[in-house]
Amino acid sequence: MTLTSISRGFPEAEFVARTARAQTSMAHVGLDGILLMTEAEVQYFTGFQTLFWQSPTRPWFVYIPASGKPIAIIPEIGASLMQRSWLDDIRTWAAPAPDDDGISLLTDLLLSQSVVGVMKGHETQLRMPLGDWERLMAALPALEFKDATGLVQGLRMVKSEAEIEKIEHICAIGSETFAQVPQFARAGVPLDDVFREFRREALAQGADGAPYLVGASSQGGYADVISPPDTTPLTHGDVLMLDTGLVWDGYHCDFDRNWAIGKAHDAAKQAYDVLWRATQAGIEAARPGNTCRDLFDVMSRIIATLDDSGGDIGRLGHGLGLQLTEQPSHAAFDTTQLTENMVLTLEPSLSYGDGLMMVHEENIVVTQQGGRLLSTRAAVELPVI
Amino acid sequence: MTLTSISRGFPEAEFVARTARAQTSMAHVGLDGILLMTEAEVQYFTGFQTLFWQSPTRPWFVYIPASGKPIAIIPEIGASLMQRSWLDDIRTWAAPAPDDDGISLLTDLLLSQSVVGVMKGHETQLRMPLGDWERLMAALPALEFKDATGLVQGLRMVKSEAEIEKIEHICAIGSETFAQVPQFARAGVPLDDVFREFRREALAQGADGAPYLVGASSQGGYADVISPPDTTPLTHGDVLMLDTGLVWDGYHCDFDRNWAIGKAHDAAKQAYDVLWRATQAGIEAARPGNTCRDLFDVMSRIIATLDDSGGDIGRLGHGLGLQLTEQPSHAAFDTTQLTENMVLTLEPSLSYGDGLMMVHEENIVVTQQGGRLLSTRAAVELPVI
Repeated sequence: MTLTSISRGFPEAEFVARTARAQTSMAHVGLDGILLMTEAEVQYFTGFQTLFWQSPTRPWFVYIPASGKPIAIIPEIGASLMQRSWLDDIRTWAAPAPDDDGISLLTDLLLSQSVVGVMKGHETQLRMPLGDWERLMAALPALEFKDATGLVQGLRMVKSEAEIEKIEHICAIGSETFAQVPQFARAGVPLDDVFREFRREALAQGADGAPYLVGASSQGGYADVISPPDTTPLTHGDVLMLDTGLVWDGYHCDFDRNWAIGKAHDAAKQAYDVLWRATQAGIEAARPGNTCRDLFDVMSRIIATLDDSGGDIGRLGHGLGLQLTEQPSHAAFDTTQLTENMVLTLEPSLSYGDGLMMVHEENIVVTQQGGRLLSTRAAVELPVI
Repeated sequence: MTLTSISRGFPEAEFVARTARAQTSMAHVGLDGILLMTEAEVQYFTGFQTLFWQSPTRPWFVYIPASGKPIAIIPEIGASLMQRSWLDDIRTWAAPAPDDDGISLLTDLLLSQSVVGVMKGHETQLRMPLGDWERLMAALPALEFKDATGLVQGLRMVKSEAEIEKIEHICAIGSETFAQVPQFARAGVPLDDVFREFRREALAQGADGAPYLVGASSQGGYADVISPPDTTPLTHGDVLMLDTGLVWDGYHCDFDRNWAIGKAHDAAKQAYDVLWRATQAGIEAARPGNTCRDLFDVMSRIIATLDDSGGDIGRLGHGLGLQLTEQPSHAAFDTTQLTENMVLTLEPSLSYGDGLMMVHEENIVVTQQGGRLLSTRAAVELPVI
C-alpha cells in the first residue's frame, strides 16, 4: 500500500460546500429544492455510505432545500448510520411497506414547494418504483418537477482536493495490483483463476472492494470487453486484458491493462502502439479550455490511422469518482468544457484484424498543464508475460 | 471448495421454459409483451451476464413477445456477448447517445403492440432515464402500459433445480468462508482487516465475487447492520457480526454469522438463543400451504419473548437468487403462498439492551418437509473466538 496516511470520510465543511454550491445553482434556475434517490447523489450530499444499496427492496430519498442542510427520508434500517452524518433532519419509516414506501413522508415534505428538481436526464435512473413515482406526482398536482440532471452532474464532475486524494489512493492500489499480474497470469492458468487472484491481490493491496473486473484473453487479441471470465487457460499467443473498478472509501479507479502471453503478434503490438499514443494525446489535451469533444477528436485522429470505423463503445472515456462511470463523456456529442480538478478516464479503443478489438485506459485529473496521471502509465510497448 | 463439478450457465431448455411460462401468464392477463430493463430480469430470460451493469451510462432492454424468443435492444458494446445467448433478434445502437438511447428502436418494436407490461411495482426501479421513459410514452400514445411486477416476480420466486444447485454452491462457499473467520478475527485485529480477509477467503473458496459484506463489532453487541467497517480493533467482549452476499455464476447467498470475541455476555447469549430458535421455527414452517406472513408470525412469536418492539428492519427474510434480496418478504403484509423450490432467507432480528440489536440469517429452499438448509446451520450457542 502506498498511501497509508489518508483518512476516511470528509470534514463537515466538504458537505457544507457541496450543498451551498447546489443551492446557489438552484437559486439561479428557480428550484425550491432537489429530490435525490440514487446512491452516488445521496452519498455526495450526506456522506452516507453502505453496500445496502445492493438490495433493491427499499427506496432512499434526500431532499436539498433552498437553504439549510439536506433532509433524509429513509428506511428505519438506515437511521443509525445516517445519524452519524452531518444531517439533523432524518425522517424514517418501517420499510419495506409496499402501500407507502416513503410516499406520504415525501408528500408532507414537498407539499409547500412549487418547483422541485429531479434527475431524469442522460445517465440517470429512477431508483424507486415507477408506480410510486406516479402516485407521488398525483398526490402533488400543483408541484412542478424539473430536470436537475445537468445541475447535479455539473457539481459532481469537478472534484475537491479531498476527493482527488481518495481517487489517487485507489488508483495507486490499482496500479500496484496490475504490477503483480505477471506473478499469477501465465500460459496454462484458467482465466477465471486470473480474475480471482486479481481480486484477492487488489484487496491485499488495500482496496475496500473489487466490484468491477472484466476482461478477456484469446489468440492475437480479444473480441469483447464486458464479459465475465470462462475457465479457458491462458495460451501462448493470447492477448490478455483486465479492466477493473476498485473502490476505496466510496471512490473508484477504472482502468485496464493489456499483456501478451508468451509472444506478441505484430497486429496486437501495432494496435497497442496506436492506443498508447492516442492516450498520450488525450493526456496532453486534458486542460481547461478544451472540451470533451476535443479529447474525443485528438484521440480519434490517432485511432483512425489504424481504424476509422468509429468503434462500438460509443465514447473514448468518461468521468470517474463515486461512480465507476459518471459524466462527462469523451464523445462527439459532449461539448462539456474541461475545468481544473475534473477526474476523467481516457479510454481509446479500436478494432483490428478479424473482429478483434483493443482498449487502453488511464485515469487523470485535469490541470492547467494537461492531464495529471492518477494511474501509473501503461508500458510503452505491449508487455509480454 | 465443495462442489467443483457444477457447470456454469444453463441449457437452452431452461430459457425456453422460463419464456414459455412468462408467455402463458401474459396470455392470461392480456399482455402483448413485457418490456424489461433491469439486470436480474434481462439475465433471467437471456442468460446475459456482465458486471457492466455497474456503469449507469447505458440502458439495456429485452422484450418478451407473446410468442417466440425474447428480443434484445441493447448498446452495441454488448452485442458480442448477447450473441452467445439463445436469442436470435438482437438490435443495437452506438450508445451512449443522449438524443436517442434506444428510444427509436423501442418505438419501432412496440408500435404494433396494444398492451405491454412493465415492472413498476414494489422492489422495482426504472433503469432508464425518466425523461426517456416520458419520451417513449409520448411516442406511443395508443399503447397501454400495464404493471407486470407480480407476473415477473412470481416466475422468478420459484427456482429450477439448476438454479437451486447454483445457490447451494455459493451457500457452501459462504459456509466454508464463515468457518475460517476464527482464523483471522480475534481481539486486536481492526474490523476493516477482518472484512478484507473475509473477502479474500471467499474468493479463495471459489466465489466469483464478494460484492456484499456488512457487519459490526462492539461491546456486548452492535447497533446497526448496514455499515461499512471502520478501523477499530476487535476487543474482548465484542459481538462481531458479518453478513455477506457472495456470488457464483450470477447467483447469490445471503446470510450472516455472529461471534463473541473472548467472552460472551449473558444478554448477547440470550438474544442469540432466541434468534436461533426463531430461525428453527421458520425452517420448520417453510413448507407449501404456509405463507410468508406465517413465517413472519412463527418467528415473531419467539422473538417477542425477548423483544416485542417489531424491530426496524421491516421484515424477517426474503427471496434470494439472481438478486441479493428479491421477492417475497416475510412480513405481515406479504401473503404469498410458499411453494416448493422457493429459495428464501430466514432473517429474524431483535433489539436488546441499550440500543443493541442482533440478526441471524440462514438460506433455505422450500420443500414438502419444510425448509431444506442451503447454508450450514449456525452453532446452537453464540460461538466464542
